[in-house]
Amino acid sequence: MAGNSFGQLFRITTFGESHGVAIGVIIDGCPAQLDIDMDFIQSELDKRKPGQSKITTQRKESDTVQILSGVFEGKSTGTPIALLIPNEDQRSKDYGHNVDVYRPSHADYVYDAKYGIRDHRGGGRSSARETAARVAAGAIAKLFLKQQGIEIFAHVTSVGTIEAPNLESNDLSALLQIREENIVRCADPATAHEMIEFIDSVRKDGDTVGGKIGCVVKGCPAGLGEPVFDKLHADLGKAMLSINAVHGFEYGSGFAGSELRGSQHNDIPQPKAADLKVFKTTTNYAGGILGGISNGMDITFKVAFKPVATIMHNQQTINAAGEASEIKGKGRHDPCVVPRAVVIVEAMAALVLADQFLRNKASII
Amino acid sequence: MAGNSFGQLFRITTFGESHGVAIGVIIDGCPAQLDIDMDFIQSELDKRKPGQSKITTQRKESDTVQILSGVFEGKSTGTPIALLIPNEDQRSKDYGHNVDVYRPSHADYVYDAKYGIRDHRGGGRSSARETAARVAAGAIAKLFLKQQGIEIFAHVTSVGTIEAPNLESNDLSALLQIREENIVRCADPATAHEMIEFIDSVRKDGDTVGGKIGCVVKGCPAGLGEPVFDKLHADLGKAMLSINAVHGFEYGSGFAGSELRGSQHNDIPQPKAADLKVFKTTTNYAGGILGGISNGMDITFKVAFKPVATIMHNQQTINAAGEASEIKGKGRHDPCVVPRAVVIVEAMAALVLADQFLRNKASII
Amino acid sequence: MAGNSFGQLFRITTFGESHGVAIGVIIDGCPAQLDIDMDFIQSELDKRKPGQSKITTQRKESDTVQILSGVFEGKSTGTPIALLIPNEDQRSKDYGHNVDVYRPSHADYVYDAKYGIRDHRGGGRSSARETAARVAAGAIAKLFLKQQGIEIFAHVTSVGTIEAPNLESNDLSALLQIREENIVRCADPATAHEMIEFIDSVRKDGDTVGGKIGCVVKGCPAGLGEPVFDKLHADLGKAMLSINAVHGFEYGSGFAGSELRGSQHNDIPQPKAADLKVFKTTTNYAGGILGGISNGMDITFKVAFKPVATIMHNQQTINAAGEASEIKGKGRHDPCVVPRAVVIVEAMAALVLADQFLRNKASII
Amino acid sequence: MAGNSFGQLFRITTFGESHGVAIGVIIDGCPAQLDIDMDFIQSELDKRKPGQSKITTQRKESDTVQILSGVFEGKSTGTPIALLIPNEDQRSKDYGHNVDVYRPSHADYVYDAKYGIRDHRGGGRSSARETAARVAAGAIAKLFLKQQGIEIFAHVTSVGTIEAPNLESNDLSALLQIREENIVRCADPATAHEMIEFIDSVRKDGDTVGGKIGCVVKGCPAGLGEPVFDKLHADLGKAMLSINAVHGFEYGSGFAGSELRGSQHNDIPQPKAADLKVFKTTTNYAGGILGGISNGMDITFKVAFKPVATIMHNQQTINAAGEASEIKGKGRHDPCVVPRAVVIVEAMAALVLADQFLRNKASII
Repeated sequence: MAGNSFGQLFRITTFGESHGVAIGVIIDGCPAQLDIDMDFIQSELDKRKPGQSKITTQRKESDTVQILSGVFEGKSTGTPIALLIPNEDQRSKDYGHNVDVYRPSHADYVYDAKYGIRDHRGGGRSSARETAARVAAGAIAKLFLKQQGIEIFAHVTSVGTIEAPNLESNDLSALLQIREENIVRCADPATAHEMIEFIDSVRKDGDTVGGKIGCVVKGCPAGLGEPVFDKLHADLGKAMLSINAVHGFEYGSGFAGSELRGSQHNDIPQPKAADLKVFKTTTNYAGGILGGISNGMDITFKVAFKPVATIMHNQQTINAAGEASEIKGKGRHDPCVVPRAVVIVEAMAALVLADQFLRNKASII
Repeated sequence: MAGNSFGQLFRITTFGESHGVAIGVIIDGCPAQLDIDMDFIQSELDKRKPGQSKITTQRKESDTVQILSGVFEGKSTGTPIALLIPNEDQRSKDYGHNVDVYRPSHADYVYDAKYGIRDHRGGGRSSARETAARVAAGAIAKLFLKQQGIEIFAHVTSVGTIEAPNLESNDLSALLQIREENIVRCADPATAHEMIEFIDSVRKDGDTVGGKIGCVVKGCPAGLGEPVFDKLHADLGKAMLSINAVHGFEYGSGFAGSELRGSQHNDIPQPKAADLKVFKTTTNYAGGILGGISNGMDITFKVAFKPVATIMHNQQTINAAGEASEIKGKGRHDPCVVPRAVVIVEAMAALVLADQFLRNKASII
Repeated sequence: MAGNSFGQLFRITTFGESHGVAIGVIIDGCPAQLDIDMDFIQSELDKRKPGQSKITTQRKESDTVQILSGVFEGKSTGTPIALLIPNEDQRSKDYGHNVDVYRPSHADYVYDAKYGIRDHRGGGRSSARETAARVAAGAIAKLFLKQQGIEIFAHVTSVGTIEAPNLESNDLSALLQIREENIVRCADPATAHEMIEFIDSVRKDGDTVGGKIGCVVKGCPAGLGEPVFDKLHADLGKAMLSINAVHGFEYGSGFAGSELRGSQHNDIPQPKAADLKVFKTTTNYAGGILGGISNGMDITFKVAFKPVATIMHNQQTINAAGEASEIKGKGRHDPCVVPRAVVIVEAMAALVLADQFLRNKASII
Repeated sequence: MAGNSFGQLFRITTFGESHGVAIGVIIDGCPAQLDIDMDFIQSELDKRKPGQSKITTQRKESDTVQILSGVFEGKSTGTPIALLIPNEDQRSKDYGHNVDVYRPSHADYVYDAKYGIRDHRGGGRSSARETAARVAAGAIAKLFLKQQGIEIFAHVTSVGTIEAPNLESNDLSALLQIREENIVRCADPATAHEMIEFIDSVRKDGDTVGGKIGCVVKGCPAGLGEPVFDKLHADLGKAMLSINAVHGFEYGSGFAGSELRGSQHNDIPQPKAADLKVFKTTTNYAGGILGGISNGMDITFKVAFKPVATIMHNQQTINAAGEASEIKGKGRHDPCVVPRAVVIVEAMAALVLADQFLRNKASII
């Protein structure tokens, strides 16, 4: 219950500190006989790794994943899959000056307050480096979901106040290709260009900026999600809010939906052949989820990220003794977290869906 | 894992359908020797019950709570506390016409798709009536938190596009009094007046409207929340998203924070005596939570509710055979859910905090 | 985590004190569309209820079960099933003399030590009355298992040193009939007669005596049970050890198996058509479980019950102040618990198997 | 829920196959600021490792443990502790002949039946090699418990029908020294000698033999264990039954207790100063546990192990096609598992007690 596990039936446990020996993840409950494509897992990690482009941190980590257990002759065996990512770039001296100083809007103080001890090297466990383990596990969840016909696509929808138009296309492969052709990972090339320019200027200011990521899930059958507390969107919300720097989550009509009337917001079902597997509504304010359960339409949600707290400016703060202190901007950090977070959002969505898929199997015999 | 329980150490399980015999809740893990004030629990339920005012549903339920176990001579004993709320107003005939028809933007279809069977009377388990059980349990969580000096206050911050100004006061008792003096439960009287007028006009149109609820937690010590997946705000987010009709959650700077720069968003700690229990920042974009762990500042978050799906208009839809069908507006429903949802938001927040309080006790010996 | 829930996917939570308003149970995760036969549930409770015969307690409780939720038109809906058993015979005065006295080998002292408060009426939550709720829930698990072709049969194999011979028959219906024809619930009529005489003489001495219950599960497919920690027999063992007065559990060859050599103990598989669903061994020392997973053979285990602690003799003890005190034999108690415990053993076995059945569904897609 | 985790608050997850890259364990919930003594952890592993003596398997594995996370400057930080034990001796060819053959009384068949796939090298996940991970985690639990004044001691009480007398001494350090002076790990030297001779003769026969391990816990305060399902002895029982080859568990008076009368079995409390922390009974049939909760007396239990299934004889069996097949005795296996299992029993007991210790903290504020 110390919070390092996620999911019930498709369950992961992550471990590792930013500057320790390694980080990693155990997946318990991955169904047997799934083809484990290590190249795919690595390619997902490559989308999150540092040092990708001029608008990400310049730290270098290859983030090479190793498999320790649970796979035999290329297939999952039903036993725990352990994935290990050794830490290569442990340049702790970058952080040596922060031993006794609480960086503004970082977790330094709260770890001390909670545990009375803190691995101060690079944020220790509070570092977003932990999310690499999620991406590795999420890649396996994606392989499982793909087998079930479920696909997930996320991209950057805003950086600061620069907002991308809604996507028209339903072709996720095409969108993925467009997204990966630009370093900010926005599927609208014109907006992407604008975003990149903006992040670059923010970076030159030694500053950072927030942004938003939108996600769509296609091919999800009706019936996923448990009523009451473990609603599908509640699990998705928790998953997203557990990602470093996330401050908000909305699905379907979201916050804007609170301004509408019922007569505007209701999604009208379209007549169909009597096939419960096919359900279509004219609009999709519901975001593919009714009463917490998927209805077969596209699942849509959006995630808001605050700006990265580490800036290259000098800032006032306090030290562990509560005294005034100054922190100088140093190190190699992201000016904007969303380009690297796209694959994290997808990974967490995949983990939720894989888990709810298995849970749904037990609803009826 | 069927989703009817919430919390790890302070854990509730709810049961009951809208038009069944009763609804109720089991609280497992409430610490022993807590004074159980039944009048307080009932007064909380009264804030959620139907038929309170002209802007809520006119259904009548006294929602009288009974205690079945776990309390001896007025005190909790450490054993499960069972609370029962018998259903009085089971006027099922209001719903008889919906047996085979899927109401737009309701959970009717997905329950059929998931379970192959559905208690169609008043929405069965998907009805917001289930939240009465949460309010009863949340009241006990509030009693526990009050003992620890933690207090929770929520109010309606918007209805449609009518938005209340930010609260200036820190006096929760005074705010509570103001809030309870108007039927929409907004702590700003002028805005409250406007909201009530608007909801009443929407109601006369046979329509409904969405809104938002803001919540603040005061007196929360630093250290609550578990790193990585069970971050305090992730648990709060899941709790809120599990409430019927909620489509969005944000804490601290929220969605707006994604538009800011790090140099604007960072909360600067103020120098203090060397007391880890006291931590103050000049601003509070963090919403009282850093790295998923409370820092001792006010915890702030906001919840968006979509408009109620049941409207008094005729709507196109489909029946269980997938054929076109029409649903006529009937029954007694809320034109806007937020006035009655304020106490639900507080209850779910209380359940999260009580749970994380107990979990935090195990972090260090 | 306060220990009042059992199971993962087919999960129960019990509540209620011996002399409170009611006891009950919530079943979360019972698959939808199961026929809920209330007569069967009641008939199971009747096998556990007090006052059945001269060798059980003479307390009278009809133990009439009510259903509050989760069943619609006779079928489970997939939502929580709440079962309530009101307490009728709350003759608390029988227990008034024990308020401050710790009865030898009862839980009085440890509840005070743990919680600092204790519902002393009839043992409160520590009373075996709680097991009625398990029997009710177990009855529903049995209905589910029967649908899958799995049947469970337990009977009394020993009372004191009187031991029944091993059962020859494989006809569970016939054995059940024989068992229910005698009040001690041993399926060997001659031994049953001897046991009854013995218990009656012990009762006349104002004393009590222990015994053992054996259980067999037929029709269980291969594959139930999770490797490593949640082995099928580990879950069965925990289930049995959680029953009041149980001091030991063994399966298959059990304690006697520890005296054998591998060459004696190994069960030799018999050649068969290439059908993984059929696996037969010449012997069954394994008790139907290999590596924690069912192999399709009969599952067999045995449970040891200590003698009931309440005797009709005066006993030395201490009071809450730690002073010497004497307790006088009073009240209406069982001279031997095993006749009423047979159905509890079956219920707990059913709950484990239903849970592991659902869990196994998620092992492979 | 795939069964590779154990514990609620002090929770471990193990991974790894017998002949994979490595095995390991994640400990989530170890309280912060605990001194992590790596030498002690390694010395515990050394007691379990193969190749120790003539009466254990002659396989060689140094079982060297590495720490990957969760420890900073020698102390636990409250974050997950990852321990890794690389597999050195992966002589898979010893097992090559078993690819398609189901070894009698092994888990080969059930893994195929459950998962449809099986890592046949050395038993894969079903190998007792997995217990090395438990011993490593249990060593950390022991360090935590020692800080709380709780100590655990197990030794071999029987091999085949050779039974050691009950221990008279209460000096666990002295007993530990005696135990470690003989290779069978029985604290009675005369019996130890006899056991060793017997195991050696069994080994020369190419056969194996079962045995029993007894365990005592000293210094456990009253109050550990949760009522109803998570009784202290139910958790201990599950823990022990989850160890490979265990077929029975009993605590306190155990199976023999079922033959006694209440007037013999009741433990009479001794008058004391009014200190709830001190509770003494004249006898200890309860095994230190009443109503599932520790009472402060010594906790005592016993565990029965079946004989190892791998024998050096030729045996009849079937292959994956269900055809008759013969298996030849080969490889390097233990003639008797109990000498190496003593430290596994202690480790699992430590994990249960550490978990229940933390859970008990949340019972009362």
